[in-house]
Amino acid sequence: MTLVVKIGGGAGIDATPVVEEIAHLVAEGERVVLVHGGSQLTNELSERLGHPLQVLTAPNGMTSRYTDAETLRIYAMAVAGQINTELVALLQRRGVNALGLAGVDGRLLLARRKTALRAVMPDGRVRVVRDDYSGQIERVNASLLELLLGAGYTPVVAPLALGLEGERLNVDGDRVAAAIAAALGAETLAILTNVPGLLRDLADPGSVVPLIASHELERYLPYAQGRMRKKLLGAQEALAGGVRRVYIGSGSLATLLAGQGTLISASPALGEAEAVSSSCLPALSAEVRR
Amino acid sequence: MTLVVKIGGGAGIDATPVVEEIAHLVAEGERVVLVHGGSQLTNELSERLGHPLQVLTAPNGMTSRYTDAETLRIYAMAVAGQINTELVALLQRRGVNALGLAGVDGRLLLARRKTALRAVMPDGRVRVVRDDYSGQIERVNASLLELLLGAGYTPVVAPLALGLEGERLNVDGDRVAAAIAAALGAETLAILTNVPGLLRDLADPGSVVPLIASHELERYLPYAQGRMRKKLLGAQEALAGGVRRVYIGSGSLATLLAGQGTLISASPALGEAEAVSSSCLPALSAEVRR
Repeated sequence: MTLVVKIGGGAGIDATPVVEEIAHLVAEGERVVLVHGGSQLTNELSERLGHPLQVLTAPNGMTSRYTDAETLRIYAMAVAGQINTELVALLQRRGVNALGLAGVDGRLLLARRKTALRAVMPDGRVRVVRDDYSGQIERVNASLLELLLGAGYTPVVAPLALGLEGERLNVDGDRVAAAIAAALGAETLAILTNVPGLLRDLADPGSVVPLIASHELERYLPYAQGRMRKKLLGAQEALAGGVRRVYIGSGSLATLLAGQGTLISASPALGEAEAVSSSCLPALSAEVRR
Repeated sequence: MTLVVKIGGGAGIDATPVVEEIAHLVAEGERVVLVHGGSQLTNELSERLGHPLQVLTAPNGMTSRYTDAETLRIYAMAVAGQINTELVALLQRRGVNALGLAGVDGRLLLARRKTALRAVMPDGRVRVVRDDYSGQIERVNASLLELLLGAGYTPVVAPLALGLEGERLNVDGDRVAAAIAAALGAETLAILTNVPGLLRDLADPGSVVPLIASHELERYLPYAQGRMRKKLLGAQEALAGGVRRVYIGSGSLATLLAGQGTLISASPALGEAEAVSSSCLPALSAEVRR
């Protein structure tokens, strides 16, 4: 059984507890792939280097980091240089033989660059941006991950993909985790972030939607703002790729897998139950971890 | 046959020609491991981030970067984040399935931290530095490199080692290349840098020592200043570990292997000839590349 864990790079996310939990799972024989983000550190570093964050807004309202050549270098340094090697060292300290990879390594993540990005300017006009180095995942080298997992290594993946022309590309970490979970045939994808799950009401952290069946996902998309929208799209891609369960939420991996967040499930049987009693969730969690 | 290439991170070193040459060698079936440095970018980034380079001088005159916790983060970003992923992308663009690793990955490079470093202060007094994150290689995970080479990947290694307590450590790139060459039983180690080789007279670039037999290396050490001293120590370690030939010089890999630099050879027969006629060097080079 394979578990893919995505840990966000947003403000206020502490990796240490998750690293502990992953160490336990790996010790129990679980195959784990850890994917991480790096938005907060990229922002901080960009600021310190005098090249502050700029956001592009697509005509459909989706926002993304404007990744010009200089931002790409900063992004690579933050995600592949600092965050990835630190997570690997934290896992190694707990006995996990972690191995960090960026998507460029061994063509792990091949992506198509968005060569002409349409962005809405502050004055409402739409401009075409051509010097953006971000992309969309097209292929995952699952055999590389299998090779490493089979040899006892725990891959830790930074969302820096290889473009079709050999360039480095900024790719969305949630979509990376989804693509990897699908490519590995993972049962479970757990997306840890700094919000408790999909909220019906953004102002009310208690309004977490506990369970969504995959066929209902579409109608929940309007609730999702900003980063959450990409997580739901990631969940959709993962489920379409054969993943059974996608958990989205904050806190620890254990509480997330125990139901303290939003579970998006491929199982119609589960999906039909409007609400799942919390008593059945520990069993679910145990199943996931087996 | 395995060839380990070290490309320096100093000023004025352009990786592109070497990447082309490595692509040719790999296409011909050669097993290549590329090790790189990153001193120049680390210095630049440190400066831009308001944490400029500080140099420690040991009582024996050897100098090294003072790597406090903040410098270590900057170093990791430069070497593992920017340089490593860019080299991998450059190689991928030329059809080489390169895969970048930092020494922390899969315990590729285990090092012992220098927990109490003696440094000579400007006033001549010796101080003990305890917050330095640099170390000396103790073990190379050769089986990881063999696993990857066997599966068709070309490893690209950043000199960021894992300490015995799970910390990240700054390690010398030349010594890393030497340790990897020895661990893999490589025939040849090529160290590309921004000086043409070991010079008898630092002011005269024409005074390159063309050939040194391993048993003579000791008496050439006094000629070596600064970075060159570490290269000769690396050469010594490589030869002691079974590597047959260590080339040190600038320019292309082809000219270096053809004799335009300093060759340090394990062969006593070669070493006895005081000067090698240039006509016999292409044959040597061909042998290396076979």
